[in-house]
Amino acid sequence: MPDESRPPADLAIVNCTALLAATGDRTTFAPGSTIEITNGRLSNIDPNPSESPRAREVIDARGMVAMPGLINTHCHAAMTFLRGAAEDVAVSRWFNDYIWPMEVNVGERDVYLGTLVAVAEMIECGVTTFADHYFFMDHAAQAVADTGVRANLGSAFFSSQGPEGLAESIAFAERWNGGADGRITTSIAPHAPYTVHDDDLRAAAKAASALGVRVHTHASEDTAQATLSLHARGLTPIQVLQETGVLDAGVIIAHGNGILGSDIPLLGQYRDRVGVTHGPKGYLKFAMGELTPIAALRAAGVPVGYCTDGAASNNTLDIFENMRITALTQKQIRDDATWFKSAMALEMAGPESAAVLGMRGQIGELTVGACADVILVDVSGFHCQPVHDLAAALVYSVQPSDVRTTIVDGRVLMRDRQLLTINRDALLAEFRLRAREITDRSHGRSIQDYTS
Amino acid sequence: MPDESRPPADLAIVNCTALLAATGDRTTFAPGSTIEITNGRLSNIDPNPSESPRAREVIDARGMVAMPGLINTHCHAAMTFLRGAAEDVAVSRWFNDYIWPMEVNVGERDVYLGTLVAVAEMIECGVTTFADHYFFMDHAAQAVADTGVRANLGSAFFSSQGPEGLAESIAFAERWNGGADGRITTSIAPHAPYTVHDDDLRAAAKAASALGVRVHTHASEDTAQATLSLHARGLTPIQVLQETGVLDAGVIIAHGNGILGSDIPLLGQYRDRVGVTHGPKGYLKFAMGELTPIAALRAAGVPVGYCTDGAASNNTLDIFENMRITALTQKQIRDDATWFKSAMALEMAGPESAAVLGMRGQIGELTVGACADVILVDVSGFHCQPVHDLAAALVYSVQPSDVRTTIVDGRVLMRDRQLLTINRDALLAEFRLRAREITDRSHGRSIQDYTS
Repeated sequence: MPDESRPPADLAIVNCTALLAATGDRTTFAPGSTIEITNGRLSNIDPNPSESPRAREVIDARGMVAMPGLINTHCHAAMTFLRGAAEDVAVSRWFNDYIWPMEVNVGERDVYLGTLVAVAEMIECGVTTFADHYFFMDHAAQAVADTGVRANLGSAFFSSQGPEGLAESIAFAERWNGGADGRITTSIAPHAPYTVHDDDLRAAAKAASALGVRVHTHASEDTAQATLSLHARGLTPIQVLQETGVLDAGVIIAHGNGILGSDIPLLGQYRDRVGVTHGPKGYLKFAMGELTPIAALRAAGVPVGYCTDGAASNNTLDIFENMRITALTQKQIRDDATWFKSAMALEMAGPESAAVLGMRGQIGELTVGACADVILVDVSGFHCQPVHDLAAALVYSVQPSDVRTTIVDGRVLMRDRQLLTINRDALLAEFRLRAREITDRSHGRSIQDYTS
Repeated sequence: MPDESRPPADLAIVNCTALLAATGDRTTFAPGSTIEITNGRLSNIDPNPSESPRAREVIDARGMVAMPGLINTHCHAAMTFLRGAAEDVAVSRWFNDYIWPMEVNVGERDVYLGTLVAVAEMIECGVTTFADHYFFMDHAAQAVADTGVRANLGSAFFSSQGPEGLAESIAFAERWNGGADGRITTSIAPHAPYTVHDDDLRAAAKAASALGVRVHTHASEDTAQATLSLHARGLTPIQVLQETGVLDAGVIIAHGNGILGSDIPLLGQYRDRVGVTHGPKGYLKFAMGELTPIAALRAAGVPVGYCTDGAASNNTLDIFENMRITALTQKQIRDDATWFKSAMALEMAGPESAAVLGMRGQIGELTVGACADVILVDVSGFHCQPVHDLAAALVYSVQPSDVRTTIVDGRVLMRDRQLLTINRDALLAEFRLRAREITDRSHGRSIQDYTS
């Protein structure tokens, strides 16, 4: 008998196989589960429901896995405009000859449109939270507010902009932290130690601490960058972050491929407030050499999460794809097929990615009280059958289009592949027009010079 | 005015963007093209059609790319039964503790069912030809005949089976070469130089030459295997293939990760009849170390094609996925972001993969007279937009579900994601039941022992 004493839930997902936990080398799936959502939170998870749920809306998820919405710990969402605009080039040329000259053309409306397209793509492939690092960020925030997704937003700045960049980064973080009914959190977003002076890093760290948010920055992106910094000033980029108080304030570090062995104990000291983002597709594409030292960081207790970076380098904003490439490359690098099991890949997608954003316990897991960010993944396709190992199916077989339904903060944003908060045709029509104009480099200007 | 003097085509694809060529570092796409198909062949390709086509059936492919159907140069199709059955284990344990004990349970009907599931998955992701290497191959051939796909089939044998294995491999190749209205070609399929004696390799080569087909075998799968062979008998596995006449007969070599520098000139001598298959997803997953030396093989003129191996190791039979991982890993290995451009990735998918099977000019390209194996790929999704670089969209953005329509030998096998020759529900129901029984290892037997 339904328990009439409890108020009805807003939404119930029934008959799903719930991913209850992924820790180290073990996943726990509960077939036939009911998940209830009330006021944007997971209010009840019942692996053995004895009765029909009392809920205003019920979604039957038979044949589907219910798992925590995926988290993209670092991207430049509006760079969807530049997807495919600079292919098969080295990273310095990519910045100096293509991206930074093109970004001169990007206006406020473009950031809104480009972010909308990014959000649409992410909702379609099961990403419910993303950390964004770009400019004209009020317009990115508006896209987040309008579409219902969750995001951590930071207004990027270079010291070459003068004091206005830093000031706007701080003002934006104040203005939007807790915005969009709490779905928006913010960061202070210096571009990188090689484009932002120590004084500005110090000010960023101080402002972040005062606001209770993190810094979000690029650092130690490859070994060459780390070595250059070490030779030029006797400090690795990670040591610069410590010296300037950024580690102490708490920081999202993209991408850390060049984190040296000597940096690891230092990062370990701040493991409760520091995380590293990992997006191997783009790193391989740029032939960046060493990949983020995930094993060493994990051993030191430093969380590492998945990211896609921008679509201009990664082509897609698909966390399933970067999870798969991470698992494959980690096995290969460590020369051990038994390392980085599917359970670990899923743990990194959930609680570890959440921890990178300082949101462990709030997102990235299906536990009562956590945010109701849930995706339903259909594993009935030929490419997933038979399901001898459900965790492996999620890591190695699932396609982004297998995500049938995406729920954020208890609200259904995509139902059975239909986007409910985005007008596809109108958006793409305007977006395509602007994409042509944005890639025009005839003006000969650039927003910055890249010297790592 | 339509030209009334020509007989109408069987099928016309109109308004497509046709991938006319991919060679080295250049792709040629023709928007607004019409492709006509007659008697299973491409009968006309018009990049500037001035009139409506005369055809019995017309497919409007607006917004889609028409490209050659993809080619899977090496797999074990029926191993779909074992997808996910042996995860996160090293290759020797994978064989000895899981796969070979499970394969004891695989019967004739299973090979039919498992191959049907593989074919369904491949049609859904745009694979129109696959090279298969398994046992009970009459039943695989029947699945190919029934579903309309194209395949090169080889009946695998070990010398431990006695003379029957070799005899059946030859008899099967005779029986089915040219079968299924010419869609089936065959190979002689010794398992590998470490499981097949030289005499049997010699007999296989002789039979292949007599029949005008190739040998299809595993060789030099990793560096350890090559080194072991070198120490044990003073010959690399590739040199064994030469000594036994296999290179001279023509051979599909899976997987060649352990091809040594000294093997390259030797393979180069037989480049008109020898090809190597490359499936990096599985190699990374097994932490196999070195990947197939694609650059050196290309430089020697030896064709290298994509493959997936079986779903038991690769989890999917998706050539788009292995193309993407190949491009990413090749850039990384060579430490050059400008190498392995999208055009090269697509060339390897088309004419190069065709050449591995000895079918260059027949499949893998859209040219008049070639087999009418065409897929229509929708690039209108958010994850592909905007399309600044269509080749890059195909290599780095497209999802398998973007393949909307798959045509083989002029026959539509999937139309707008609906499979037309496979009964999905009935097939999966029987398949899932057998999958549970096949993974039972309580009998304690094995079909072979793996010692590389």
